[in-house]
Amino acid sequence: MIPRYSRPEMVSIWTPETKFRIWFEIEAHACDALAELGVIPKEAAKKIWDLGGKAEFNVERIDEIEREVKHDVIAFLTHLAEFIGPESRFVHQGMTSSDVLDTCLNVQLVRAADLLLKDMDGLLAAIKRRAFEYKDTPTIGRSHGIHAEPTTFGIKLAQAYAEFSRCRERLVHARKEVATCAISGAVGTFANIDPRVEEHVAEKLGLEPEPVSTQVIPRDRHAMYFATLGVVASSIERLATEIRHLQRSEVLEAEEYFSEGQKGSSAMPHKRNPVLTENLTGLARLVRGMAIPAMENVALWHERDISHSSVERMIGPDATVTLDFALVRLTGVIDKLLVYPENMQKNLDKLGGLVHSQRVLLALTQKGVSREDSYRLVQRNAMPVWRGEGNFLELLKADKDVSAKLSAKELEDLFDLGYHTKHVDTIFARVFGKDAVAKG
Amino acid sequence: MIPRYSRPEMVSIWTPETKFRIWFEIEAHACDALAELGVIPKEAAKKIWDLGGKAEFNVERIDEIEREVKHDVIAFLTHLAEFIGPESRFVHQGMTSSDVLDTCLNVQLVRAADLLLKDMDGLLAAIKRRAFEYKDTPTIGRSHGIHAEPTTFGIKLAQAYAEFSRCRERLVHARKEVATCAISGAVGTFANIDPRVEEHVAEKLGLEPEPVSTQVIPRDRHAMYFATLGVVASSIERLATEIRHLQRSEVLEAEEYFSEGQKGSSAMPHKRNPVLTENLTGLARLVRGMAIPAMENVALWHERDISHSSVERMIGPDATVTLDFALVRLTGVIDKLLVYPENMQKNLDKLGGLVHSQRVLLALTQKGVSREDSYRLVQRNAMPVWRGEGNFLELLKADKDVSAKLSAKELEDLFDLGYHTKHVDTIFARVFGKDAVAKG
Amino acid sequence: MIPRYSRPEMVSIWTPETKFRIWFEIEAHACDALAELGVIPKEAAKKIWDLGGKAEFNVERIDEIEREVKHDVIAFLTHLAEFIGPESRFVHQGMTSSDVLDTCLNVQLVRAADLLLKDMDGLLAAIKRRAFEYKDTPTIGRSHGIHAEPTTFGIKLAQAYAEFSRCRERLVHARKEVATCAISGAVGTFANIDPRVEEHVAEKLGLEPEPVSTQVIPRDRHAMYFATLGVVASSIERLATEIRHLQRSEVLEAEEYFSEGQKGSSAMPHKRNPVLTENLTGLARLVRGMAIPAMENVALWHERDISHSSVERMIGPDATVTLDFALVRLTGVIDKLLVYPENMQKNLDKLGGLVHSQRVLLALTQKGVSREDSYRLVQRNAMPVWRGEGNFLELLKADKDVSAKLSAKELEDLFDLGYHTKHVDTIFARVFGKDAVAKG
Amino acid sequence: MIPRYSRPEMVSIWTPETKFRIWFEIEAHACDALAELGVIPKEAAKKIWDLGGKAEFNVERIDEIEREVKHDVIAFLTHLAEFIGPESRFVHQGMTSSDVLDTCLNVQLVRAADLLLKDMDGLLAAIKRRAFEYKDTPTIGRSHGIHAEPTTFGIKLAQAYAEFSRCRERLVHARKEVATCAISGAVGTFANIDPRVEEHVAEKLGLEPEPVSTQVIPRDRHAMYFATLGVVASSIERLATEIRHLQRSEVLEAEEYFSEGQKGSSAMPHKRNPVLTENLTGLARLVRGMAIPAMENVALWHERDISHSSVERMIGPDATVTLDFALVRLTGVIDKLLVYPENMQKNLDKLGGLVHSQRVLLALTQKGVSREDSYRLVQRNAMPVWRGEGNFLELLKADKDVSAKLSAKELEDLFDLGYHTKHVDTIFARVFGKDAVAKG
Repeated sequence: MIPRYSRPEMVSIWTPETKFRIWFEIEAHACDALAELGVIPKEAAKKIWDLGGKAEFNVERIDEIEREVKHDVIAFLTHLAEFIGPESRFVHQGMTSSDVLDTCLNVQLVRAADLLLKDMDGLLAAIKRRAFEYKDTPTIGRSHGIHAEPTTFGIKLAQAYAEFSRCRERLVHARKEVATCAISGAVGTFANIDPRVEEHVAEKLGLEPEPVSTQVIPRDRHAMYFATLGVVASSIERLATEIRHLQRSEVLEAEEYFSEGQKGSSAMPHKRNPVLTENLTGLARLVRGMAIPAMENVALWHERDISHSSVERMIGPDATVTLDFALVRLTGVIDKLLVYPENMQKNLDKLGGLVHSQRVLLALTQKGVSREDSYRLVQRNAMPVWRGEGNFLELLKADKDVSAKLSAKELEDLFDLGYHTKHVDTIFARVFGKDAVAKG
Repeated sequence: MIPRYSRPEMVSIWTPETKFRIWFEIEAHACDALAELGVIPKEAAKKIWDLGGKAEFNVERIDEIEREVKHDVIAFLTHLAEFIGPESRFVHQGMTSSDVLDTCLNVQLVRAADLLLKDMDGLLAAIKRRAFEYKDTPTIGRSHGIHAEPTTFGIKLAQAYAEFSRCRERLVHARKEVATCAISGAVGTFANIDPRVEEHVAEKLGLEPEPVSTQVIPRDRHAMYFATLGVVASSIERLATEIRHLQRSEVLEAEEYFSEGQKGSSAMPHKRNPVLTENLTGLARLVRGMAIPAMENVALWHERDISHSSVERMIGPDATVTLDFALVRLTGVIDKLLVYPENMQKNLDKLGGLVHSQRVLLALTQKGVSREDSYRLVQRNAMPVWRGEGNFLELLKADKDVSAKLSAKELEDLFDLGYHTKHVDTIFARVFGKDAVAKG
Repeated sequence: MIPRYSRPEMVSIWTPETKFRIWFEIEAHACDALAELGVIPKEAAKKIWDLGGKAEFNVERIDEIEREVKHDVIAFLTHLAEFIGPESRFVHQGMTSSDVLDTCLNVQLVRAADLLLKDMDGLLAAIKRRAFEYKDTPTIGRSHGIHAEPTTFGIKLAQAYAEFSRCRERLVHARKEVATCAISGAVGTFANIDPRVEEHVAEKLGLEPEPVSTQVIPRDRHAMYFATLGVVASSIERLATEIRHLQRSEVLEAEEYFSEGQKGSSAMPHKRNPVLTENLTGLARLVRGMAIPAMENVALWHERDISHSSVERMIGPDATVTLDFALVRLTGVIDKLLVYPENMQKNLDKLGGLVHSQRVLLALTQKGVSREDSYRLVQRNAMPVWRGEGNFLELLKADKDVSAKLSAKELEDLFDLGYHTKHVDTIFARVFGKDAVAKG
Repeated sequence: MIPRYSRPEMVSIWTPETKFRIWFEIEAHACDALAELGVIPKEAAKKIWDLGGKAEFNVERIDEIEREVKHDVIAFLTHLAEFIGPESRFVHQGMTSSDVLDTCLNVQLVRAADLLLKDMDGLLAAIKRRAFEYKDTPTIGRSHGIHAEPTTFGIKLAQAYAEFSRCRERLVHARKEVATCAISGAVGTFANIDPRVEEHVAEKLGLEPEPVSTQVIPRDRHAMYFATLGVVASSIERLATEIRHLQRSEVLEAEEYFSEGQKGSSAMPHKRNPVLTENLTGLARLVRGMAIPAMENVALWHERDISHSSVERMIGPDATVTLDFALVRLTGVIDKLLVYPENMQKNLDKLGGLVHSQRVLLALTQKGVSREDSYRLVQRNAMPVWRGEGNFLELLKADKDVSAKLSAKELEDLFDLGYHTKHVDTIFARVFGKDAVAKG
């Protein structure tokens, strides 16, 4: 997490101030439940809210105490006692540090997921808008980086929309994975705390009670969360890579927006580089790489050890802040993307009609030529065109074996671009819904 | 995928024979739909099923053709033509290789997921049986590898049950991610094939049509699939690690079953090693490591490239075969696990009553001692016991500050084991359902 | 490891037959040393070589025994006894299974490294040959996929040569990391076997004695080995990616060799796809992914556990076989690469002279214009050219502020391609040595 | 990189202030060389040093400029011009941003490596001291977590010493990998800058000239660097895991130092947890995980793209700061480790003599019993002992088949602990050198 790749909304979820505020709320809600159960005085619970709810926790003071006691939750509780006075002895009754730490972490991860979902909605809206804008704009489809057959730029964006819709659904699952609360005391037996306290705190924080914890909330949940972020990052990389390809000097079908005053190169003033999408490619590598430590965190020893903690102190903020930044950056890139339909047409025409080769092949088989023979007939006319020697349609017309099966008129009809785009609306209806297409 | 870590059920999903059979079915179902749409003769579709449905595809012959044409689907279609004769020209009409390859891969991944789900059910049943067997067997709970407070061996297993129940649900999601079918032709535009063909084939194969493909089925689906296997593997590692710990010479609370004739060590005849769970630990590392290449596969170039293919040829079988083997092995380990309740009790008694320290702490605070003071009172009596110098209960009784607040009788009551296990049924009801506990 | 991506030379290193032969040699060399030390009779050592040296070990028989005793080395020794008779009791004296297994693994990894080094020499030779062939062939250099300044195709290949030379050196280090032998008995104390046995076996097998083993050879060595393979794989990916880029329809500066009879697409007969380099990209992902499990293998418990074994049974063969295949495939790609200098020139000319923009910038500053002003002067003339509106040289000549500083003649001189290639020999001398350039 | 796991020495290498200072030095050294070559005036070079050498670069001002021009190096040069005045136009002549950025990164990575090497020396010294302290302290060696045969605690530490000595050597290699300098201008052709400038700057900064760069320094170097850090981290995890095992309640052969005032658990006052080594286990996961993004950075497009940059901005500081912190923390753990030889002896005695089983086995074979029979004889006496039923030596004496071969006296001699430790000095001489052992 470095400022350059951070947005304040996500960063604020991970500040010490936010963390201590969540800790306080967990403790105070637990006190309410304990008071209700008669374990502690109701006035104590009230006083804790009254004095702690307004308190400004002093991060430096807590750090100072921690340096002495070498335990962060004890340091916090000691600081809390400075506000609340003798009633503070009712705080944390029967609880263990993990009850606070793990429930807090999950609150933070849930909030992070909510922000990522909001980012995702913004991204989906931007993609959708541009997809409809270019729904029928012809462009060459490429496989292996080689011109294949025509498609439209809108379909490309519809693919991205469908992919990020899946990513959105995955984020919803990931959020659910970590939306649990554990207040179960040492080794998770509830020996010193009634399970109803957990239920109360969970409800107040919008979480589910963890069915069975081991003092800690089991880390398979978090592994799944971070693995999901890794998959989302990989989808970001895919769309970023597409734009990088489209901006290549030889292709130039689209470009990242280039603001006034921006400099592409300290040495070469003419350059306009796809730096944002290259940056996103790198950020994707970072987020993806964090999935492995998160999975290694699962196999804690016995009821728990603390090895996961240092990992999560880093990847908790790093993965969510980076992904949040990346989603918003990608949204901006899509939103302002400069699209060059004329260049798309120029590239489409580049291969002298070869993009229609499959259609000729199919027409020949439908005229009774075997698939093998059709393939050979097409290929022998395609290869000179590929080498820049001649026009595909003219060569086919001149080929005796071809013209024996397909008239000049029939051949010309096979070179119609509309043939390739006739199902655009079907595809858009699948991706965006029939209503959207009807309106769009 | 090596025989040592493979089960035939899963291996058979990945044989060339299975693959070619699925390819045939995709092509033949597509012919049915094409015939229904009037694109090809109905008799041709019938003949393809009649002749191909009974055919024994010759893997060696297909390989031979592929060596010439350097293209696996064309090799298969050429071989198919050898069976079917001239009607074979109607096969693969308007389709592209990826339609066959990707739909087939997803069929295989779905079958693999089904087998993994069956494995998981077996594992869950084994864990459940043993969990109820040891529901009330006291054992020490450990945090950081250090004795913490008592729990029961049944609760340990309930934790594993809850974790693998989550893993089961994740596998259901993973299966759904890849249960799609694409028959959309070159660059996915349906230019040469009607979308209804895709719908028909999907229905016949128990898949959903891919809303929008790019000639290939997008690889974020597969990344999610393999990432999920990585998380499941990590949970396997966790339970395996627990058993390895329990089998340590100094702990010996449980042991892998050791058959007659088995030799633990070529050099040391007395040894009984947790080799199965160590093996599972290694297998988990392997499956987990495959998540990264799967995520790197997402960012294919433009509409598609073929870089994902070599990755999937390896990790498709490797990850599923290894995980299948691991789940079944773990089931066997749990099923036959030798459990030693007397050793659990011995270890419980090891710390001279220190496991009750928190309860004493709480009792002191309830008598009005501040949390800080209570902590110090308990710690000063705990430390000598930790060093093996004295009995915790006796020391507490002899401590003037403690005995001023808690009578000898009160202190003795605080050392009751039942206190720690009183919520076992609550926990079991959460994990296995109330009915299971009532019956259990 | 699947046949499709395997070469027999490397596969043979990993067969059971090879493994058992190496096991035998370790045991027999150890017997020699034991006999020399007087621990066992010299005749026994001789008989072991005589009878075992010619023996054809029966893999199926050994597997059968292993199924009973569940221990591979004991199964092998039992089988060996069937050949050698009563003297077999002198075999494995004071040794432990790991002495055999780990030393054997290292012998295999060393042989694998030797083969990889041979592959690397072949690759380097191919790159060098093509580098000199195109030493002075101008081509556009690209940063961010955007045309930057001219370079030569030979320099591109010289970069690859330098990178793979470094990879070669890394492989030499990796080989050295694992070229050790441990014959130190249980927990590595030499209690039951004299350290001189280890020294003898090491010398005979071309290894160094492991200074201190823990029964096993420490796995940091193997982690470094597999991490190095991962880096080499990443360099393969880089060169493969370069070729994929060059073969793009819009670029077409080079192409993988396309044999007669090969079919690029089942649907589109005109296509010639960079399938080999795409395949290499995928193989690189696989090899790289194996670095992580290898690193996770380091932290074995205490003196050793066996969790590393299943990992190494897979990645030992998989990583080396895949990398061997990839290096040889890449060598073939480079060796037969079709290079199109005319297309390189065509692309060079594409940006209307913009590739000379930096040189104009520098000339202006040398005429006393500030860097900031020079940048602005160049950029305002570059931007129209970028949009396809005009020729850069003509615009500069027509710009009053520019022509005030640089005459038409001076400007023309700045557009000389030779300016960019004047240091090709210097670079080649650095990479290939001065002699090679003098000859070349 | 978070303060909790950071040391100021390493953090200071990565501050903006340090970075800009290095940038300045690269530019200023380049000016010297350019002046020497007559490209720029000597007085300009001198003035740049005079004014820039003393300048306090204003990070906020540079950030402000960067927000406008969106280019960090241009922002820095603009700021530099504010100090130096018109002569600033001679700065950066013929160079490109990457010349500055990449050379700077390598300077930082070299400095980081130097600090890591210093850390490593401290760690090695601590391990050595403790190894000699416990050279002859008997302890049980364990394989699979099961008691195997005796060793000494010193040997355990000697193993760690040997492992970290290898890690030290790897760090030396890693440092060398990145100790290069590139001043080669756009796309690395030296078109606008003489190669002698690079040589001069390299020499001044203690680097080697990069033989051939592609505008950027090739990232295989950095991949190797970070992969090496991942291996070192894995070795840290290994030693940390060993200590965690030793501190387990049931083992308690060693403990992390526990300071006055420290609290092990907020709930359980008696606990002393191995929190430092658990923390190191987590930090190892983090550093290891960064190897993958570093390897993914290798395959930049063509001469370069910028996708590596965001990765390195994070993992450059994160990996080195975390590893530095981990090495120093581990040094402290070893330095102050509480070691309990009495507990080691207690554990050694735990298995009732079974640790001598192999020696009995060997003695039987030397008396002419077949290996198979010997194994069975030993195992049938070992198993009851394993179950806690009887003493191994007594059972062997009472076994008729055993006593037929080995007298009571002979059996007793086989139970001598010194037998297992007789090669300690040999091992220490291999690891620490003969002189160290002679002195030690």
